[in-house]
Amino acid sequence: MAQLRNCVIAQSGGPTAVINSSLCGVVDEAREHSCVGKVFGAFNGIEGVISGRFIDLSSMDGEWLKRIRHTPGAILGGCRHMIREGDQGEKEIESILEVFVRHQVRYFFYIGGNDSMDTALKVYRACATRGYDISVVGIPKTVDNDLAETDHSPGFGSAAKYVATSVLEAGIHASGLFSAENVVILETVGRNTGWLAAASALARRHDGDPPHLVYLPEVPFSFDVFFDDLSSVVKHYKGAFVVVGEGIRTVAGEMIGAASSKDSFGHPHLGDAAANLARFVRKELGLTARFIKLDLCQQSAMHFASLTDWEEAYSLGRTALRYALEGLSGVMVTLVRKPGPQYECSPGFVPLERVANVEKPVPDVWLTGVARAVHPGLIEYILPLIQGEVEIPIVGGLPHYARLQE
Amino acid sequence: MAQLRNCVIAQSGGPTAVINSSLCGVVDEAREHSCVGKVFGAFNGIEGVISGRFIDLSSMDGEWLKRIRHTPGAILGGCRHMIREGDQGEKEIESILEVFVRHQVRYFFYIGGNDSMDTALKVYRACATRGYDISVVGIPKTVDNDLAETDHSPGFGSAAKYVATSVLEAGIHASGLFSAENVVILETVGRNTGWLAAASALARRHDGDPPHLVYLPEVPFSFDVFFDDLSSVVKHYKGAFVVVGEGIRTVAGEMIGAASSKDSFGHPHLGDAAANLARFVRKELGLTARFIKLDLCQQSAMHFASLTDWEEAYSLGRTALRYALEGLSGVMVTLVRKPGPQYECSPGFVPLERVANVEKPVPDVWLTGVARAVHPGLIEYILPLIQGEVEIPIVGGLPHYARLQE
Repeated sequence: MAQLRNCVIAQSGGPTAVINSSLCGVVDEAREHSCVGKVFGAFNGIEGVISGRFIDLSSMDGEWLKRIRHTPGAILGGCRHMIREGDQGEKEIESILEVFVRHQVRYFFYIGGNDSMDTALKVYRACATRGYDISVVGIPKTVDNDLAETDHSPGFGSAAKYVATSVLEAGIHASGLFSAENVVILETVGRNTGWLAAASALARRHDGDPPHLVYLPEVPFSFDVFFDDLSSVVKHYKGAFVVVGEGIRTVAGEMIGAASSKDSFGHPHLGDAAANLARFVRKELGLTARFIKLDLCQQSAMHFASLTDWEEAYSLGRTALRYALEGLSGVMVTLVRKPGPQYECSPGFVPLERVANVEKPVPDVWLTGVARAVHPGLIEYILPLIQGEVEIPIVGGLPHYARLQE
Repeated sequence: MAQLRNCVIAQSGGPTAVINSSLCGVVDEAREHSCVGKVFGAFNGIEGVISGRFIDLSSMDGEWLKRIRHTPGAILGGCRHMIREGDQGEKEIESILEVFVRHQVRYFFYIGGNDSMDTALKVYRACATRGYDISVVGIPKTVDNDLAETDHSPGFGSAAKYVATSVLEAGIHASGLFSAENVVILETVGRNTGWLAAASALARRHDGDPPHLVYLPEVPFSFDVFFDDLSSVVKHYKGAFVVVGEGIRTVAGEMIGAASSKDSFGHPHLGDAAANLARFVRKELGLTARFIKLDLCQQSAMHFASLTDWEEAYSLGRTALRYALEGLSGVMVTLVRKPGPQYECSPGFVPLERVANVEKPVPDVWLTGVARAVHPGLIEYILPLIQGEVEIPIVGGLPHYARLQE
């Protein structure tokens, strides 16, 4: 009996609107290769790999898989678990190996961000050390767009489109009321990087359009400068629409939105930057101020997702499987943008150690240091990523999303 | 020379996604009646009427008007100004009369909520007292759905659709991560009424779907009950998705989200209910908690507006003009729902004094008093209002909205 060569795929970290599209890419590609056995989906990222909690995705109905492609969230569940150094990590690695052997797993795909690529790297190294023949391939995913070595990450384009649309619409709304209500502050996700905050500037079509001020975490935040910026905009337009990245911080490193607790990766829980600034504006400037915190909606707004993003996510899933069959391992698939005015991306790959735990901020050359001005190069970079709309099935006035019948 | 019979139309309060649709209804209907002269749009609600800051909408290009119908926000600008009793109010009324006479205004349309209907009523009474021949007709508008005497208000259906979609998507996202992140609290607008918070329950398609708990301002909020509710849901599902109306308050009337300042109508600025509850959950229950505050996006999300709502808004604009021509005055147009399982609304009207400053809460018969259960009658009431999608023009990946060239 020929040995089975099975796959395991898992989804890590916080999901995006298109993370299931990448998963479907892997499954669809696997069906086209007779040398691939089953495709197991592991529940809750690496946790499901450690415990062997699998579902056989290759036996699922094709129509269901198509619907999964239109469904936000991680259909297998996400996780915030990392494999750490030390005894606990060793035990987990042993469990994973044992599960791999038991299920004859020869391909492992991990969809996630830079923390998750570190986990993929640890699995890859452990297998290599033990001489266990497997291809480990990471698939990038993050609305924050902070993964290194890839032009951009699937998930970002859809989040950028949703943020820009929200700022466009709320900006039109707010501008018509500036005589009565002065300041609106919208907060985007992105712990240390301002890609999404910058994307809000796509909403500007004419001079004076919202967002009037955009603050990225890459540029130290100063209350004095903010005060001056805001006063000047309010003087001009009677009000101001402001966008801030959740991770904005002072030159001393003090987070504007920091709370006291930390998540399981040890990162501080953020989420109050806009609320804190709105309070500051009311108190110090005597203006009315409200804030908008889209939070998870940025990661899950499939109802207005980017077609480009959705298709790239799918295509990287297919690419990951092809690379694995070619024997690549310990890599993450990437998007490589062709230089020039015409947008075109082709697939590539990079060793996992070049992306694990590495954060890609907005590069210095695109930081203007002025909250009124988002760099045109940054706009040109983001604009192609939000093009096209995904047609989703609507039933009873609401999107009709798939669910996993465990 | 025959006397001109001109119109003035103005948009008051906070806009909705479909407030411009009502405006277009008035203008389009006016074009079909040769007895109607010009249609002036007043800038910033009653403020533009007082000062005579007008634009001639009847001379605007038809294509532009069509695009306006797809544009959120108030194209003429909104306002928070009310005409009050006393000298200032008297002076304003005199200005309005003078403007009406000067511009030969015989029809006045005011699109707004219950505060704004009070202003329309004052204008109506002042004209009547002075024997000035004019038809004053109010057109309802509010995402809060708190206007009395109409089955529902234009603006609500679109906001309900957007809120339910956001809760559906963010709920799927959050549920896949409950093992790592426990509680999500989403806040809806609605100062004293929970119509929009209740609409979030449309996102539930199966038992156990988010939202797990829904708190309406109509039901006194108790931290003890919340604690018990939440613990029980978290025990069952590992996490919980909670929706709260911004105006939830204790039995003693203490707002959970109250801040210290007040708006120009004297209402307290709200907006921190979800943030405050998230802090409570972290501190008292030791769970991770994040919050979502869609705020203005609920009032402006034309990119996923309800076709039913959009068409009703337009049709009420047309109805308002027809009623005015028939000589009705001092009334607000309403939507009258036909009883029975098939949704059908016809236009009606009600004297302004029956709606001015009156708030329509969710009726007692639809309050379950239990945060796990939104009344099926309430769901049946809201569901028809979110049906259908408005096709909006997209350019460069974003909605292409119209603007007013003053």
